[in-house]
Formats: sequence, C-alpha cells, structure tokens
Amino acid sequence: MAGAYSPRVVGRHEDEQRDGPAAASSGPSSGELAAIERLTRRLGPAPAAELWVGDDAAVVAPPHGPLLLAADSVVDGVHFSLRWSTWADVGWKAMAVNLSDIAAMGGLPHRSLVAVAGPEGTDLESLYDGILEAADRYACPVVGGDLTAAPTLVITVALTGGLAPGVPAPVRRSGARPGDLLAVTGPLGAAAAGLAALRRGEPDGAGVQAHRRPRPRVTEGTEAARAGATAMMDISDGTGLDLWRLTSASGVAAELDRLPVAEGADAEQAWSGGEDYELLMALPPDTLEPLRSALAELGLSSPLVIGRCTSGPPGRLILDGREMVPGGWEHRL
Amino acid sequence: MAGAYSPRVVGRHEDEQRDGPAAASSGPSSGELAAIERLTRRLGPAPAAELWVGDDAAVVAPPHGPLLLAADSVVDGVHFSLRWSTWADVGWKAMAVNLSDIAAMGGLPHRSLVAVAGPEGTDLESLYDGILEAADRYACPVVGGDLTAAPTLVITVALTGGLAPGVPAPVRRSGARPGDLLAVTGPLGAAAAGLAALRRGEPDGAGVQAHRRPRPRVTEGTEAARAGATAMMDISDGTGLDLWRLTSASGVAAELDRLPVAEGADAEQAWSGGEDYELLMALPPDTLEPLRSALAELGLSSPLVIGRCTSGPPGRLILDGREMVPGGWEHRL
Repeated sequence: MAGAYSPRVVGRHEDEQRDGPAAASSGPSSGELAAIERLTRRLGPAPAAELWVGDDAAVVAPPHGPLLLAADSVVDGVHFSLRWSTWADVGWKAMAVNLSDIAAMGGLPHRSLVAVAGPEGTDLESLYDGILEAADRYACPVVGGDLTAAPTLVITVALTGGLAPGVPAPVRRSGARPGDLLAVTGPLGAAAAGLAALRRGEPDGAGVQAHRRPRPRVTEGTEAARAGATAMMDISDGTGLDLWRLTSASGVAAELDRLPVAEGADAEQAWSGGEDYELLMALPPDTLEPLRSALAELGLSSPLVIGRCTSGPPGRLILDGREMVPGGWEHRL
Repeated sequence: MAGAYSPRVVGRHEDEQRDGPAAASSGPSSGELAAIERLTRRLGPAPAAELWVGDDAAVVAPPHGPLLLAADSVVDGVHFSLRWSTWADVGWKAMAVNLSDIAAMGGLPHRSLVAVAGPEGTDLESLYDGILEAADRYACPVVGGDLTAAPTLVITVALTGGLAPGVPAPVRRSGARPGDLLAVTGPLGAAAAGLAALRRGEPDGAGVQAHRRPRPRVTEGTEAARAGATAMMDISDGTGLDLWRLTSASGVAAELDRLPVAEGADAEQAWSGGEDYELLMALPPDTLEPLRSALAELGLSSPLVIGRCTSGPPGRLILDGREMVPGGWEHRL
C-alpha cells in the first residue's frame, strides 16, 4: 500500500510453509518494522491537509491544472549497476528518470510514490539518501510506497505532476509544425561517454556524473512550455530515436544543422547513446528569444538550436544533407 | 515513462557491450514495439481532455476531492506463484491489492499506471487480460506505465483515487473511538484456505478463487465512508495484525465477540492468514443500520459486527475474554 510502506510482504514467500502459531511471521520482523519506521521519519511531516504515510493510501492536495502521471522502473543490471553507481546514485536515478518525464510535458513535479522490491542486503538507507535528495531538489516529496522482498532489485517510482502558473497546457510530442525550430537543453552524449568510461575502469572519466546522476530539466521544461514550445520530450533512448519519435508524432520531418556533442563524448554517443535526459523541443521562431531571456534570468543556459521542422515525410531526419536512421550513425540509403 | 509504455529499456542491459552502429539496438526490437502497440490499443481511447499513452507522461482530469495515491508491487514467488495462478490471475491481483488500498480509505479508484519488469517469456497479453479486467470492473483505466526487462517478474501498480459524491473525507485508520462497533465486510480466512488447498494440490479447494482473484471492496468502502465510518483499513496482513494496527492508530482497545470464518477455512486462517482484502471498519452504533440499508439496496451483504472499541490500552485485543497476540492464535499471557 502506499501510505504506510506496508510491511505485509517483506520476507514472506508464497512458496514457504507457514504452519501453526508461527504464522505470526506473516507479519514483518522487528528489523523490517524498524527500517520502515526509520524511512517514515525521513519523509518528514505532511502539510496539514495531507496524509503521507501510515495508512492504506496517501492523501494529498491535487496539483494545479490537469494531473500528470508517470511511472518507471529501474532494474539492477539493466538500468544501473552497483559496480558503477552507489546506492544513493541508484535512488537518485530512479527518481530522476521519472522527474524527467514530468519535465518533458512542461509539468511541475508534485508527489512521488516509491516501491522498492529487493533482495536481502539492499541498503535502503543509502538508497533513500539519493531518492530523498532528488525529491527535495525537485520539490516532489515521497508520500508513500512499498517495500517488498524480491530476488532482484527493482525500484519503481510513480509521480504526479501539475502545471506551473502561466503554463497553459502540457506540451505533447505531437504539436511540432513545419518552420518550428528544434532545440535541446544541452550538449549530448555525456551519459553514454560516462558509461563507457566506467566500463574502461575510469571512474573519474568525462560524463560519469551524467550517467550516475542525470539531472531532469524541470525548470527548462516549464519555461519552454510557458514560452510556447509546440512539442517536447526528454532524450532518454538516444537523440536520433527520440527525434524520430517527436517528428513522427507531429507529422513533420527535421533538417538538422548540428549535433552539440558533450565534452568527452563522440558524435555516435551524442546521436544514439541515450540517457542524457536533456529536453528536445520544437519552438516557433518567435519563442526562442523570450525563452532565452527567461532562462538567462534564472541563470540557466540557452537552448541549443539544432535544426528545424519541415513539411517532409514524417519522421525523416536529415543531418548535414544526409538522411539518418533513428538509432544509429549509419546512412539509411 | 508513463504515457508511452516507453520501450527505452526493454532488452537493453547495462552490462552488455553496445558498440558501433549496432547501437541502434538501444531502441526496442520490432517484437517489443509490436507488443507495446498491441497493449496500447487494448487500453482504449482516452476521453477528449485526457492523454493516456504515447507521450512522456499521461495527462488526466483530476478526481473529485483530495487525491488518493497508492502503489504496491507484487513479486513472482513472493506474492504469487505461476504454479497456482494464471498470468491473468496475477494481473488481476496486482490491480486488486492496490484497488483495495483505495477502497480502504473510502475512496473511488480513478486511474492506474502499470509497470511490468519481467524476464523473457512473460506473457504480457495474458497478464493484461487480468489487469484490464480489474481496471474495467473497478472503473480505473490504465493510462500508462512501463515495460522493462528484469530477471524476476515484478508488477508495480500505482493508483490515483478520489472521493465518491457524498463522502466528506477519506477514512483513516486512526479515527476509531471507544464505543464504535468493529465490523468486517465478509468472513475471513478464505484466501489462506485457498493457498493451503493449492499447496495440497487441490486446485478446486475452498478459497482458491479468493487467493487467485481477491475482490477489493470498493463499493462497501465508499458506502461505509458515506455512512460515517470513523476508521477503516483492508485486511491484507491478517485480521489480528490489522486489528492491532487500526486500534493502535486510534488509541483504543478492542473486545471481540466472534471471528466470522469463511467456508473451508479455520479460525487460525481467519485470524492470521491475511490477503482476504475484506475491509475492517469502526462504525459508531447509529451508522450500522443506514450502512446495512445502503448496502442492501445495492445487493451487497451487511457488514459483520465482530466486536467494539473500548477505552482499554491501545492495541489490546480481547476475543472471548482471552487476550490475543496480533499475528497468531496463541495467548500473550
């Protein structure tokens, strides 16, 4: 259940025999209860009208505007490796990938639920260091969740979001029009370069922090929505693939002039590496300057224009005159 | 991400080498894309003001009243076994345990996100048969989620809920007062009896359906909230433990006259078996008749009164004059 971090399941196995009075063990052990109590204390007190933990579900005040909902799991050995990331890094990342989904709609993160399924030895305290650091940084308090035993560590975060004042509506992927500029919130390929460095045994290599602690572009997203971005998404699977998705959904083609490559990364990593969590946005030309000014006032970098939308075949991507395939660096023709 | 059933992660392994142009494989395979597309079609069309799948996050109209949030994972070998349950049963159960958490607040289920992390061979279509059957039955459409590779099947459902008309506020665990009646929505122990039967190799034994397809008591919960229940929770961990939780949270003791035992179950299963997902509620005496009438009009059974709250030590449970321990059937003294 959400509100209570219900211990109903920790340590109870479907295939285990539970006989006689010892069935009391269907409840949590004192160690598990203590862990849950420590976590609960760390979540902090709920505002007066809200109920965060200790009940079957959490009760919260709805956010402003329509309700945004996102949920993503991160899995040990698939999305992270504890060889390369600390427990706190993993907790941060589980939150960050979801926060980025809210950011990509131009939304404002609101509340989070965290379900942790993991084996014995899962360092919940350290995992929550990262989870709560991200929750705090992006003003998205953890209001409940679940803890359960599982052979593999799987962390699932579900987020609610709303709209910042002055943002008329969530920004979808499908609203780009021919003539809109295409821009990204920063240079690309850092996370892939960082992962490659970690694989080479270079823990201080370029991009390592981008891999371990991706930064969701929440403020950039709300400012772009306010300025009038017509389409937006986060770059999680690779710039090429995500460009293809946005342009396909919008029924436009893209002509790209350049691909800003992060320091220490190469063009291949920038095009197909993924996990950069920069935002990709379509901006009507007259929105670019207002957005630049708004971001500059907040001390944030200008979006980097990479090209423009055209009325070509939906999803066709041209870079420097060459047609690109979404996932890789090779030519289609 | 939520809205799109993002395939970003399916089949990509952190520990795998991805070199050169074949990095296109960081995207989904055509089989995975096809599975996602089939699922997306099954979710049905969103209402005009909502955006369910195909974007970074889902956009939905907020529910009536405060926002209820719940998230629970179910794990293969911990909460279910495919030896005893079909894929569809597992999908149903993943939804049902969460719907029950909303029901336990007197809430009305609103929208759901489903994150499936599982190994090759996970029968997504059949899993979704059960997920969507429950979503449909309880009017809680699946609006997004996530699909990812994992060595173990872990299904995490996150739900939003609101309040039904006429329900003034969510019902917490902590509101019971001395003099309130304690009641449950049905006889207890069926799920435990069913699990025991399955372990004995009796797939048609009593309670097997209660184990495979628990029924969240959503209507009973909203009616109880409307009638004036002062405290409520669902019985997921065992009647004794959950009674202890409700009375402890409320600062009351309980004197119990009887424990209604489901057909085919024994008293031990009724007290500590858990997973019945009946609701436990505290009812001021004058609310019982109105609640009975309201439920009868809907063709639903009357709540079964099992005892009353007293001003004794918080959490003390007396049954037939004997002091009970929460988890088991033995005496504390």
